[in-house]
Amino acid sequence: MKASEIAQIKVLLFDVFGTLVDWRGSIAREARRLLAARGIAIDWEAFADAWRNEYQPAMEEVRSGRLPFSKLDVLHRRNLDAILPRFGLGHLDEATRVELNLAWHRLDAWPDVPQALARLRAKFFVAPCSNGNVSLMADLARRNGLVWDAILGAEFARDYKPKPVVYLASADAFDCAPAQAMMVAAHSSDLAAAAAAGLRTAFVARPDERGPGRGETRPSVPVDLAVPDLGALADRLGCP
Amino acid sequence: MKASEIAQIKVLLFDVFGTLVDWRGSIAREARRLLAARGIAIDWEAFADAWRNEYQPAMEEVRSGRLPFSKLDVLHRRNLDAILPRFGLGHLDEATRVELNLAWHRLDAWPDVPQALARLRAKFFVAPCSNGNVSLMADLARRNGLVWDAILGAEFARDYKPKPVVYLASADAFDCAPAQAMMVAAHSSDLAAAAAAGLRTAFVARPDERGPGRGETRPSVPVDLAVPDLGALADRLGCP
Repeated sequence: MKASEIAQIKVLLFDVFGTLVDWRGSIAREARRLLAARGIAIDWEAFADAWRNEYQPAMEEVRSGRLPFSKLDVLHRRNLDAILPRFGLGHLDEATRVELNLAWHRLDAWPDVPQALARLRAKFFVAPCSNGNVSLMADLARRNGLVWDAILGAEFARDYKPKPVVYLASADAFDCAPAQAMMVAAHSSDLAAAAAAGLRTAFVARPDERGPGRGETRPSVPVDLAVPDLGALADRLGCP
Repeated sequence: MKASEIAQIKVLLFDVFGTLVDWRGSIAREARRLLAARGIAIDWEAFADAWRNEYQPAMEEVRSGRLPFSKLDVLHRRNLDAILPRFGLGHLDEATRVELNLAWHRLDAWPDVPQALARLRAKFFVAPCSNGNVSLMADLARRNGLVWDAILGAEFARDYKPKPVVYLASADAFDCAPAQAMMVAAHSSDLAAAAAAGLRTAFVARPDERGPGRGETRPSVPVDLAVPDLGALADRLGCP
């Protein structure tokens, strides 16, 4: 990007799951913490993967209009109930399900994120544009020391990415034309949808997101910037 | 309030105009700053009052359904255009109107607010539940050093206070039952509506909001707490 193009950007919108936080390692850890105490032993990473695999189909129910908008917490719970029997846990009690579902509120940021986000915020407005709901985003921010200017994304737009309205409503909340907002994500599909809506795009590599070597190392679609981590994005955008 | 009742509160929702920021003094200052340089001399406080007097009627157009939801910035601009001729300023150019309308993004907090809000945030989730739009709230937060967990209120709910949905949607965003959220405001009408929706309420006195001696010194409706300033609220809620 040219400096003149960067100068037009006013707000950075962030994907969160996978881009800023390690959902797989954190969900595996939380599931182990809650269930191992009850004598349960399963493949915790496989459990995290199974839960996450239900994510897109559940949101598609909302995107398609078959289900009214529901917070991601609600979809996560539906998905949890669906996968528990596959791990021999169909008997798990209600209180434990409720607590386990909140594991998504206790995800850890990738190590580069807190400091780099503070650098980026010194120059730009910053907000999550995630499919996660407001309370989930607020809990992740508190846990990881992230400061946002607003929490935007799915619950604000009342639909799920990659529907264009989610990106456009988030940019509009900051009174921005789409080209004044940059979507930051570790997923080519997210960035392709943001670019189609007119936003600028930055790809951040998270090569181990879905397990060792099972994340995107480079974008498979055209993007404005591609960087190895968030600190490099701050450098490229001229943040002190 | 009993300690057991305070212990149930999870989130504090704040009115902003008048409660946290001095809209009258700030609008008068900004109008003078922008217009005096153009040789204009009017009663700046009267101008601020006239602009603010159009506030409720404009929102009523949205609340009644006669106007689709529009950001407060849009209503402020409509109201500005309506009052300028009354001050002999019907000729004011478009660029100046645009800049003047942004005066609402440059309001100063009352002196007690920044430090007390940080104290409150150490114990509770905090969010504005204002009729101001997201970008306006984000600009006020940056200007005054306020840190929010989320920006809720009218733009999030897509309707204007005192409609119940604005309070209820803001509490629900934090997964709270109404009684787990406390509305903090300097206006009895705001608190009466919040209480009717089931929220807890705290009145903060801003006796000079509309000019010397022209603000509420005590609530005219039942509230859970009434305090002279935000620091006293932090004391009453047991914040270190």
